[in-house]
Amino acid sequence: MNPEAYDIPARFKRLNDDAAEDHIGPFFYCPTESGAEAAFRPGAHNVNGLGTVHGGVLMTFIDYTLCVAAVCRTGLPCVTVSLNSEFVGPGAEGALLLGLGEVTRMTRSLVFTRGEIRSGDDVLLTASAVVKLIRQ
Amino acid sequence: MNPEAYDIPARFKRLNDDAAEDHIGPFFYCPTESGAEAAFRPGAHNVNGLGTVHGGVLMTFIDYTLCVAAVCRTGLPCVTVSLNSEFVGPGAEGALLLGLGEVTRMTRSLVFTRGEIRSGDDVLLTASAVVKLIRQ
Amino acid sequence: MNPEAYDIPARFKRLNDDAAEDHIGPFFYCPTESGAEAAFRPGAHNVNGLGTVHGGVLMTFIDYTLCVAAVCRTGLPCVTVSLNSEFVGPGAEGALLLGLGEVTRMTRSLVFTRGEIRSGDDVLLTASAVVKLIRQ
Amino acid sequence: MNPEAYDIPARFKRLNDDAAEDHIGPFFYCPTESGAEAAFRPGAHNVNGLGTVHGGVLMTFIDYTLCVAAVCRTGLPCVTVSLNSEFVGPGAEGALLLGLGEVTRMTRSLVFTRGEIRSGDDVLLTASAVVKLIRQ
Repeated sequence: MNPEAYDIPARFKRLNDDAAEDHIGPFFYCPTESGAEAAFRPGAHNVNGLGTVHGGVLMTFIDYTLCVAAVCRTGLPCVTVSLNSEFVGPGAEGALLLGLGEVTRMTRSLVFTRGEIRSGDDVLLTASAVVKLIRQ
Repeated sequence: MNPEAYDIPARFKRLNDDAAEDHIGPFFYCPTESGAEAAFRPGAHNVNGLGTVHGGVLMTFIDYTLCVAAVCRTGLPCVTVSLNSEFVGPGAEGALLLGLGEVTRMTRSLVFTRGEIRSGDDVLLTASAVVKLIRQ
Repeated sequence: MNPEAYDIPARFKRLNDDAAEDHIGPFFYCPTESGAEAAFRPGAHNVNGLGTVHGGVLMTFIDYTLCVAAVCRTGLPCVTVSLNSEFVGPGAEGALLLGLGEVTRMTRSLVFTRGEIRSGDDVLLTASAVVKLIRQ
Repeated sequence: MNPEAYDIPARFKRLNDDAAEDHIGPFFYCPTESGAEAAFRPGAHNVNGLGTVHGGVLMTFIDYTLCVAAVCRTGLPCVTVSLNSEFVGPGAEGALLLGLGEVTRMTRSLVFTRGEIRSGDDVLLTASAVVKLIRQ
């Protein structure tokens, strides 16, 4: 799975194998100063009955974005504890979606994050999540 | 797509064609007095890197459950405005998941819902959503 | 501060001194099998410009309810990590409000809770929270 | 109620009379390009048993901030439909708190908002809310 195959800029990379993310996505990421940026180009299998990108697909993508933001800042694997989403606007099949994930605080066990999904200048979804770090 | 093909009780039915839900699911539902019950049996393509059902898949399933609950109570199509999830416990590939969706209030334009995903006696996810009715 | 002074049933008790809760409330609680029940009778100082109980007051009361539910089940002090509320219906000054808080899961460090505020048969608010236990 | 009496910069103003907000606050606001900024200096009656600003007080303040952001952008009164908060860090009695509220989308009936509470350079709380406009 190559970002170029989805017309996604080459600065984005794959994280780990994850069957569900590869089945719904694939999703790609790039570290940023405050967390991570992610990229995804939804296809025909990602749309709902109205012909727009399904809310569950958007939530899966922002969950990826926010977890990867936590991983990029901490270097540790993590699991999502809670995630809130607002569905601000509809997304179109074939349009490049960018996820922006920011870490607002890290404690020893929890990371607080927030982010959004954009398509061009439009915000499609806003979200926040609490993730738990997995320490050995 | 037949519930029996997924070893799901025959009282559950399909709603409408929805490419994303069929790709991630399929999901099935059954009306209840307070909303709807939904059923889903996750497969190998639904698991994350830890081998448990991916959080995005669970959120997609509860979004379906809560929207269908609103549809069952109002007879109108709807879109999700906001959705909150807590990831209470991990889900196993192959286990039957039941979504329970309850409508707590209907106004002319908005429906308030809450629900959970269960696997046997275990709660995997709790959620609430506000959905907007689509009137002509 | 006595429950009877607020026409609240005598089975409800005070928890600890908490300046903010006493200033906004006072609130009272009673342990239940799954968490806690709480009681509060809002006064004239608790209403918004529309003459109904202010959303911030309701959120303070459900935060109390859900934390007390966690305390009742674990015996440990806790702080709220995240809290989500839906404002299902308006509350009236002078009406007895009951908060119902349920623990859906306890881990070593986190407790998952959900609950609602009722006034008679009406649900006013639904909520969920993740709280963190404070261990020495 | 005067901002100077609370050592709050004079650019902040009061909105309307609101018994609960004046009892917990008072809170003050100032319109911004994307919504509103709000100011509040918590006192001794706003702290919890740990001696930090109570989460319910912070949620009341961010609810004010996000609603005022919607009012500033639309010129219409509104009620909160749902509000999510993450408690990122503790707030100190006597410190100036600033609420930042941003409107991410306005539809005919709903406004999507998000925001945060800051104390100096620290983020204390992140939040998002959906508010409903009240049209005659």
